[in-house]
Amino acid sequence: MTNLTIGLLGCGTVGGALVDLLDARRATITARTGVELRIGAIAVRDTAKHQDRLADPSLLTTDTAAVVADPEVDIVVELIGGTDPALTLVRTALENGKPVITGNKELLAAHGPELYAVAAEHGVDLLFEAAVAGGIPLIRPLRESLVGEDISRVMGIINGTTNYILTKMSQEGADYADALADAQALGYAEADPTADVEGYDAGAKAAIIASIVFGVDVRSSDVQHEGISSITAADIDTAKRLGYVIKALAVIERADGEVAVRVHPAMVPTGHPLANVNDSFNAVFVEGATVGDLMFYGRGAGGGPTASAVLGDLVDAAVNVANGAAARLSITEKVTLRSVDELSSQYYLTMVVSDEPGVLAQVATVFGTHGVSIQVMEQSGTGGDAELCLILHETTEAALHATLDELDGLNVVRGIGSVIRLVSDD
Amino acid sequence: MTNLTIGLLGCGTVGGALVDLLDARRATITARTGVELRIGAIAVRDTAKHQDRLADPSLLTTDTAAVVADPEVDIVVELIGGTDPALTLVRTALENGKPVITGNKELLAAHGPELYAVAAEHGVDLLFEAAVAGGIPLIRPLRESLVGEDISRVMGIINGTTNYILTKMSQEGADYADALADAQALGYAEADPTADVEGYDAGAKAAIIASIVFGVDVRSSDVQHEGISSITAADIDTAKRLGYVIKALAVIERADGEVAVRVHPAMVPTGHPLANVNDSFNAVFVEGATVGDLMFYGRGAGGGPTASAVLGDLVDAAVNVANGAAARLSITEKVTLRSVDELSSQYYLTMVVSDEPGVLAQVATVFGTHGVSIQVMEQSGTGGDAELCLILHETTEAALHATLDELDGLNVVRGIGSVIRLVSDD
Repeated sequence: MTNLTIGLLGCGTVGGALVDLLDARRATITARTGVELRIGAIAVRDTAKHQDRLADPSLLTTDTAAVVADPEVDIVVELIGGTDPALTLVRTALENGKPVITGNKELLAAHGPELYAVAAEHGVDLLFEAAVAGGIPLIRPLRESLVGEDISRVMGIINGTTNYILTKMSQEGADYADALADAQALGYAEADPTADVEGYDAGAKAAIIASIVFGVDVRSSDVQHEGISSITAADIDTAKRLGYVIKALAVIERADGEVAVRVHPAMVPTGHPLANVNDSFNAVFVEGATVGDLMFYGRGAGGGPTASAVLGDLVDAAVNVANGAAARLSITEKVTLRSVDELSSQYYLTMVVSDEPGVLAQVATVFGTHGVSIQVMEQSGTGGDAELCLILHETTEAALHATLDELDGLNVVRGIGSVIRLVSDD
Repeated sequence: MTNLTIGLLGCGTVGGALVDLLDARRATITARTGVELRIGAIAVRDTAKHQDRLADPSLLTTDTAAVVADPEVDIVVELIGGTDPALTLVRTALENGKPVITGNKELLAAHGPELYAVAAEHGVDLLFEAAVAGGIPLIRPLRESLVGEDISRVMGIINGTTNYILTKMSQEGADYADALADAQALGYAEADPTADVEGYDAGAKAAIIASIVFGVDVRSSDVQHEGISSITAADIDTAKRLGYVIKALAVIERADGEVAVRVHPAMVPTGHPLANVNDSFNAVFVEGATVGDLMFYGRGAGGGPTASAVLGDLVDAAVNVANGAAARLSITEKVTLRSVDELSSQYYLTMVVSDEPGVLAQVATVFGTHGVSIQVMEQSGTGGDAELCLILHETTEAALHATLDELDGLNVVRGIGSVIRLVSDD
């Protein structure tokens, strides 16, 4: 049997759940793996706050660097979040030959590729299942099970807050402001919800997924964001009538050797597995050339699910230490990010036009000029203004924006309404 | 860089797809893992049949034992199926210190625990992602990511043939015989469909899942089977009206230290993620104490998806060989299988009764006598005979069967119709 000591950095919701979970499952883990794990030190900002919660308060310290440097500590678990001092702590641990488990998506989305290189150079594990999609085993299957698979696209519902808001809007007809207020009241959304609703949280996770799936260097700053705050109850109604559900998706694609990573609301066909992922659940849909379609579904956040992911990594790292081995992840390629203009998609869009003869012909001509083809066009409202609702065949962003600019200049067009991408049902 | 040579036993649909996939992905795998994989020998029954398909026909042989014994062969991939000679070949390879990848569910469901022990004793990998749920990464997440998780129940749609048949019945109102004929015409079902429709195929996979999830010795002979051939179009209609979909489920549960493994049709609430798994897709739903609900979805069969699973295992084993390490799976516990009588479930059932005063009271009294409580009772049809349709609160199989026996003896009961378990919506 091998005894290994963990240095825990941070003991909030996830760290606290991890301490409890490890106590509850220690015997089973030892029986199945031959490794006994114990926590040797816990670094927190304010030790007084944690005295009563822990069985052994003598483990507490405020000195994060000392925990990393402690020769008794074999494995470091970093749950403090942010990049400073997390970057230095994680790097130092790896350089000292200590495997690191982290749930820190900001850190990895900003500095992942350097850290993967440091881990590889020192032959130790850097594992981060908890950083993306909480409790769902996703990173390990992508990194190991699917390492030989040619993956063309990954689409994920990887932000529970926006999925909760959109589910509430879809199922109860709530408008965005009310659904957000409800999510805030339940603690699913922060007082300042920007990071969630504008797609920054999902963007960081999407960058991590892209680096794993394609073995390329993609950072959160490479991700295009579009939030959900402009989605209206009317958009959701129309989507439903046309057989779609609106979801906030992270889309990671490779085409012609270029990679595109973006986060935006999208209309998903109701029969698609992602359309049935509701409330604060997460799911990641993977399209592989050989394996076909896969989906991984579960809880994307919360102390328990996230601690479960950390524990899975911890056991993996511990078994590797016991065996003298380490996982290996090479970020082999500098990638060309596909220019936004070249990205193509089907679109749903609405516009208000004056209801007079010849308007449809004028509008249709503009689309034709830019080579954008219309799949469905519906007009509603009579007298004065009318609303047009269109679904477009696949077109590039460049062509779409040129079309929208020209439409906006027409006298008969009062205004462009919603512009939402569509996931094709194929 | 490490060069490793594979000995392939069997080159049917999956083996052929593996040869092609390995050729297509060799460069990427080498770049990401530092291991170069090549196939050194392929054992088949009839070499003439494969001459034209393979780039290098000189690899072909009919001598399976020679491939396993070949000192050039570092890793054995067993895709011949069945237990004889697969058991001897796999055991010999492991005893000679060669990792084995297999997609052979019959072998593992009959002899898994012995083989896991041989692999552990010789410190080599025995990997079998392809044996359960085809291309879905399931075994690795269960074995590694969730090794620390307290899992209470796993429910799987793990037979594509029966899921196709039930989907056809649900979506098109087809009856069982027509849906089966359709599945046979499409090649989803065999001419003799027994192994699929009576639950033997799913039962073997369920035994493997149980051994991985609970670390216990469960074989296919320990699994209770109930097929789908008695499901009628009327059952499916009634289920739909009540908010359920009928699915063929494998259910693996642990309660009070005892394990139960069974395969049977079940009514699944329409909002449950498993209810939306259609056609020949598979999905496995996992309920963990800490991680909450998880689901893994994808293609459960087919050359490509299964070859993808084999390749994931192959890369894992190869990296372990290169690192001098091996995965480890301990089957630690001899388990008590829960007696069938003690299993409890909610039930849907139908019976035909004579439509006369006092019948409902007589029927209800029988349920009451056995402590079985009724959640919903509906009567349809007037004059002569009437049909009763009931949903029962959770009850044991023993109590249910005692109730059914007594009901069957009543003069007013013309016959018991369907008896289908229900998945609770919680």
